[in-house]
Amino acid sequence: MTILLELSLRPVGWVESCFHDCFGTPRQGMLAPASVAKLELAADLRSQGFLEGLQDFSHIWLIWQFHENENTVAKGKVYPPRLAGKKLGVFATRSPHRPNALGLTLAKIESIEADTIFLSGIDLIDGTPVIDIKPYINEVDHVRESRSGWLENLAPKMLRIEWSEEASLALQSAITPISTIHFKNLIEQTIALDPRAEIHRKLEKIFYVQLFALDIGFTVLGEAAKIVIIREAR
Amino acid sequence: MTILLELSLRPVGWVESCFHDCFGTPRQGMLAPASVAKLELAADLRSQGFLEGLQDFSHIWLIWQFHENENTVAKGKVYPPRLAGKKLGVFATRSPHRPNALGLTLAKIESIEADTIFLSGIDLIDGTPVIDIKPYINEVDHVRESRSGWLENLAPKMLRIEWSEEASLALQSAITPISTIHFKNLIEQTIALDPRAEIHRKLEKIFYVQLFALDIGFTVLGEAAKIVIIREAR
Repeated sequence: MTILLELSLRPVGWVESCFHDCFGTPRQGMLAPASVAKLELAADLRSQGFLEGLQDFSHIWLIWQFHENENTVAKGKVYPPRLAGKKLGVFATRSPHRPNALGLTLAKIESIEADTIFLSGIDLIDGTPVIDIKPYINEVDHVRESRSGWLENLAPKMLRIEWSEEASLALQSAITPISTIHFKNLIEQTIALDPRAEIHRKLEKIFYVQLFALDIGFTVLGEAAKIVIIREAR
Repeated sequence: MTILLELSLRPVGWVESCFHDCFGTPRQGMLAPASVAKLELAADLRSQGFLEGLQDFSHIWLIWQFHENENTVAKGKVYPPRLAGKKLGVFATRSPHRPNALGLTLAKIESIEADTIFLSGIDLIDGTPVIDIKPYINEVDHVRESRSGWLENLAPKMLRIEWSEEASLALQSAITPISTIHFKNLIEQTIALDPRAEIHRKLEKIFYVQLFALDIGFTVLGEAAKIVIIREAR
């Protein structure tokens, strides 16, 4: 049982996402339904009908690589951010730090054009290599009665969102691939999840989340986040 | 976009399953809730707490390798067995013949002992290498309203099950890791799904499905399958 059969995989495509780096990217895409991404098949897989029939499904599973993982040594236990210091076994979590750095995401299909899938409700950062695409089949992918262990009563605490006058103005002239109201929703959903690491929550400073090519600056006071700056990403 | 980033993965464990080979293994584990499997972590991952906390979850996702895939060239389209001759894009199916031969299975946790998970409702054959284990989290893995495309109205046709006197007797003395009544359920659920390939359905012969170390022989007449033999697997 100690034989290590090595497997080689190849990306079937790369994600173009509204999220630029880990900071600000929701832990699961469902938490930010306004998030958007585009997945085009790798060049050698195009024009062969790989996506035919997928347009009749509403959702897909993506298996993908945590490609920005720097910590590649997988220990048995991790500290989930939401558990404030308690350790858990890696396989009881969705942590990126696992023996094989693969993620699993359920995403909504918005539309399909040739070899490109337009998605929403995603938790993938720009450039993520996708390893597999599978249709979501309610009949076999859904459990009627399930228990979710330590995650049962851990609905994320949401911050209330306020806007500075300056940021409100900047929003009106912001250029992104989506509409202004859609972008506003995306900003609010992203910041409301409070991307700040536990250890930074005492800091009184402006935090920046990059969405598309823009940096969104916000401050937090108690249960409220205030969007204060929208500017070109550096 | 044509850069092929190769990824290397390692099995985190291997499955010991009631199913011995593809023939007879259900397309999705949920279809045979009486099926059982055991998943022990690879030797170098034991005694490090990898499974700690998982006992509070009812279900897990397994990402695994279709290791008995002989056809490794992935074409864009496949013929799903249930669609009788119609072709579909690989990524609109769960077909094993995909660019990366990875499967995704939702399984029920029966119990966990040290570094071993006892599972039911599985579609994995004995010896399957498992690449990742993730908890099923209802909040993010379940879509309230979804469309399942070509699979929407394709509930599998179930065969009615009959038993020959000889097979009924053999069942009573069959030795397996599970109880006689559990084994009877497993046999009936497995055969009721009609494992025969479309092209073999005209053959009047005894088909064999291996469950544990036993061959189960059955014949089919119209909508009824008759279990006729239970004997040691050859």
